[in-house]
Amino acid sequence: MRGKFITVEGIEGVGKSTVVPYIKSLIEDAGFPVYLTREPGGTELAEAIRQILLSEWKEELLPQTELLLMFASRSQHTRVVIEPNLKAGNWVVCERFTDASMAYQGGGRNIPSDYIESLAKLVHEETWPDLTLYLDLDVKGSVSRTRERVKDRIEQEGWEFFNRVRSVYLDLASQESRIVAIDASQSLENVQAAIASTVSPFLQ
Amino acid sequence: MRGKFITVEGIEGVGKSTVVPYIKSLIEDAGFPVYLTREPGGTELAEAIRQILLSEWKEELLPQTELLLMFASRSQHTRVVIEPNLKAGNWVVCERFTDASMAYQGGGRNIPSDYIESLAKLVHEETWPDLTLYLDLDVKGSVSRTRERVKDRIEQEGWEFFNRVRSVYLDLASQESRIVAIDASQSLENVQAAIASTVSPFLQ
Repeated sequence: MRGKFITVEGIEGVGKSTVVPYIKSLIEDAGFPVYLTREPGGTELAEAIRQILLSEWKEELLPQTELLLMFASRSQHTRVVIEPNLKAGNWVVCERFTDASMAYQGGGRNIPSDYIESLAKLVHEETWPDLTLYLDLDVKGSVSRTRERVKDRIEQEGWEFFNRVRSVYLDLASQESRIVAIDASQSLENVQAAIASTVSPFLQ
Repeated sequence: MRGKFITVEGIEGVGKSTVVPYIKSLIEDAGFPVYLTREPGGTELAEAIRQILLSEWKEELLPQTELLLMFASRSQHTRVVIEPNLKAGNWVVCERFTDASMAYQGGGRNIPSDYIESLAKLVHEETWPDLTLYLDLDVKGSVSRTRERVKDRIEQEGWEFFNRVRSVYLDLASQESRIVAIDASQSLENVQAAIASTVSPFLQ
């Protein structure tokens, strides 16, 4: 039986990396094997693309270059890692996927959403998440939680950029039943409880 | 005055790198400054993408990944190098551009041409070559001229691949007046004479 594909989305500091092991334990407790991964990256080649994406360059890394590199990485990741795992019956839990491109390159960088959708169609037409957990937090909360971190090229953007990113995430969550918004300003216990109740119908 | 943008196309061994200095001398003799470049690559970041494209990987580098990386490189190259040079009045002579993606990723890898055209529109809508010199040679001639070379990932493809690539180049040359096909099986003197008579109207 094909595994389920679960993605975790949200801006910096919402707790994506913190909740992934919890999601893994929920799925394993129900008796399913799990593969954890993240984007950009996830294969040897895609990690080389990630390095280009998150490094700082003397030249400007243009918005459309960023979008194309994200989807080049996603192309490898989907075909080399995600699809084979799902086919083998493993559940795949992935930090960030195409919703992140809609939010960051669409909302953040102002690239039209229909363009991003057409890239998604080229790269992973038949592979979409069964469930997306969107951890929502306002930019003020994000900034206060990530103040101490060393930030990559994209994380160094300003408040307005992340407000646009969050705004697209909220729009997507309101439009698509696949995407469930979870209030990430709550205590970790409450966030986990919300995740458990969202994931549990998939575990039956 | 804006410079002219000239591209040189063709499969391996047709003599692209050999004729580029000759084209440069024609333009300089007419009193115009010239900038020479090539794809994939041409900027620090685009050269990092080139490394990914031409290296061998344990995983398959998928056709759509190859296409996206080619256009990510082209996006940087067009905006960071080609456009500023043209605006400054320099002529730009470039080995390979979007016609190569039509031929290699379209013909060679069977990606639909309308998809490649839509990427071209995203990445360099306002920058197209004024003139494209397509050096035509059959695959047998190409193979015999490149037998001694160390070949990169794409150059290692077989005859059928390069036959498809050449076929798209020939189609493009027959469809677009911008593209002039030059018989590369001739002596270098005759190839240069054909190039000179093609380029000279642009030099007036």
